[in-house]
Amino acid sequence: MSLVIVGSLAFDTIQTPLERREKIVGGSGTYCSLAASFFTPPKIVGVVGEDFPKDVLALFKRKKIDIRGLEIRRGKTFHWEGHYGHDPNQRETIRTELNVFGDFRPNLPGPYRAADIIFLANIDPGLHDDILSQMGRPALVAMDTIKLWITTKPEAVWRALGKVDILFVNDEEIRLLTGETNLMKAAKKILASGPGLLVAKKGEHGACVFGRDFVFGVLGRVSENVVDPTGAGDSFAGGFLGYLDKMGKVTRPNLRRAAVYGSVLASFTIEDFGIERLKRLRPGEIEERFLEFRRLVSF
Amino acid sequence: MSLVIVGSLAFDTIQTPLERREKIVGGSGTYCSLAASFFTPPKIVGVVGEDFPKDVLALFKRKKIDIRGLEIRRGKTFHWEGHYGHDPNQRETIRTELNVFGDFRPNLPGPYRAADIIFLANIDPGLHDDILSQMGRPALVAMDTIKLWITTKPEAVWRALGKVDILFVNDEEIRLLTGETNLMKAAKKILASGPGLLVAKKGEHGACVFGRDFVFGVLGRVSENVVDPTGAGDSFAGGFLGYLDKMGKVTRPNLRRAAVYGSVLASFTIEDFGIERLKRLRPGEIEERFLEFRRLVSF
Repeated sequence: MSLVIVGSLAFDTIQTPLERREKIVGGSGTYCSLAASFFTPPKIVGVVGEDFPKDVLALFKRKKIDIRGLEIRRGKTFHWEGHYGHDPNQRETIRTELNVFGDFRPNLPGPYRAADIIFLANIDPGLHDDILSQMGRPALVAMDTIKLWITTKPEAVWRALGKVDILFVNDEEIRLLTGETNLMKAAKKILASGPGLLVAKKGEHGACVFGRDFVFGVLGRVSENVVDPTGAGDSFAGGFLGYLDKMGKVTRPNLRRAAVYGSVLASFTIEDFGIERLKRLRPGEIEERFLEFRRLVSF
Repeated sequence: MSLVIVGSLAFDTIQTPLERREKIVGGSGTYCSLAASFFTPPKIVGVVGEDFPKDVLALFKRKKIDIRGLEIRRGKTFHWEGHYGHDPNQRETIRTELNVFGDFRPNLPGPYRAADIIFLANIDPGLHDDILSQMGRPALVAMDTIKLWITTKPEAVWRALGKVDILFVNDEEIRLLTGETNLMKAAKKILASGPGLLVAKKGEHGACVFGRDFVFGVLGRVSENVVDPTGAGDSFAGGFLGYLDKMGKVTRPNLRRAAVYGSVLASFTIEDFGIERLKRLRPGEIEERFLEFRRLVSF
């Protein structure tokens, strides 16, 4: 099968209680593609400025990530700055400089258009229709969204939901989107609007996959080593969809394992700043941690 | 084996966003004993006023709860009032009238003193020494504590920890007690102070059992039906310790299952006000939900 990921590539300036990093490489498309690359060779769609590091493009190629859909434009790469408090679940956006990402109109190269899975990773929901119209008949359309779109374009988000199979969101976003505090009631509202699957990410508490008649939960791994939570959600989606693409079939056992692999990838990402941990991650470590997730909850 | 539970018996006035209940029966000892009674006949130690309902005492007897350690004194039963917000994890104490519980000095009847497990359920940590001096050599000493004791008597709490095997607390209390945001680091601090096991309750997110060289997690059951969260933590401890007492041995597989049974009992308690759900709970329902907890996380 094959997996197309449409998302942002960015410079992130990150401040944690202990350390600050200026303009390190990040972005939803970056994290998601790197995480997925451990399972399947993903195809990325995005835009960067001329300032985007050549060695990261080389890294993508080494990881077999197809970058024919990556536009390099005159100007600067998207820049985001965020600060984390002592509780790593609390993050504050300090600034957002869209730069070349501001008028990004994704254009899918020919060989991308027959992909089986497409992931619309946290881009303006108003772009979805145009992107999907460029695709053949993907078996699976997945999307992510954030507070920004939910608060500024709620109708566009709900409309977009009508055309996707899987929605990835965190629990705060689910509550914001539905106005429901109770996660199960909120999940039912979302499932009623279109997607057959809702993946609710809960940070350190884990994640839940809601289907119309089943729920599966992954418990968050308890770790001392949380350096930078940026990219955890995108790594989750990358691991999840990469694994599904590799398996080629959306069965319940595959969905359960996909959610665990998503959690595994996210658990590595947060162990270092930016993409550092993913860069040095070995497949054996993924399998080892998959078993650790199983031991954690087995009884 | 046998299990002694020292705790409060109370009237609770509870306000949820939807409903208010005046002076219904509650208290840590009440919830804990009822939950434990599904696994073993517990012995309760506590004090109530003459206003405590006779039918609840009759219920205890029907459930084979030993109430020889329950003092009935002239005066009024402890009364607590709490309000819950739309997020059931947020609760505010409106008033606390200690009444006969104010100068409670637990006195264990002779047959209680040889018990194998004793649970000091959320009582003044300054009372622990006196209670433990009345016991023979319990195989297991467990305690619970709350924000009130952690903020007003932190030294007494830490001293008490030096003499217990299992501490039950919620994640907020763990952070308050240790000053650590990271749960794993906080757990290590607590384990270094005495208890061999820390049970961290995380409300809707589940629970984690920390030992010196292992971690086990139970994922919270996702439910639409949360009526009144009061007593969830005490029901957890009751189910946990009741199951351990029934099994007679603290092995790792037993600890894992104990944590699941604790979660099962808590998940029932919150389905109705006060002890209503526990009163009509059938053993078959417990087994059914135990399997549901397993299905929820199996992959």
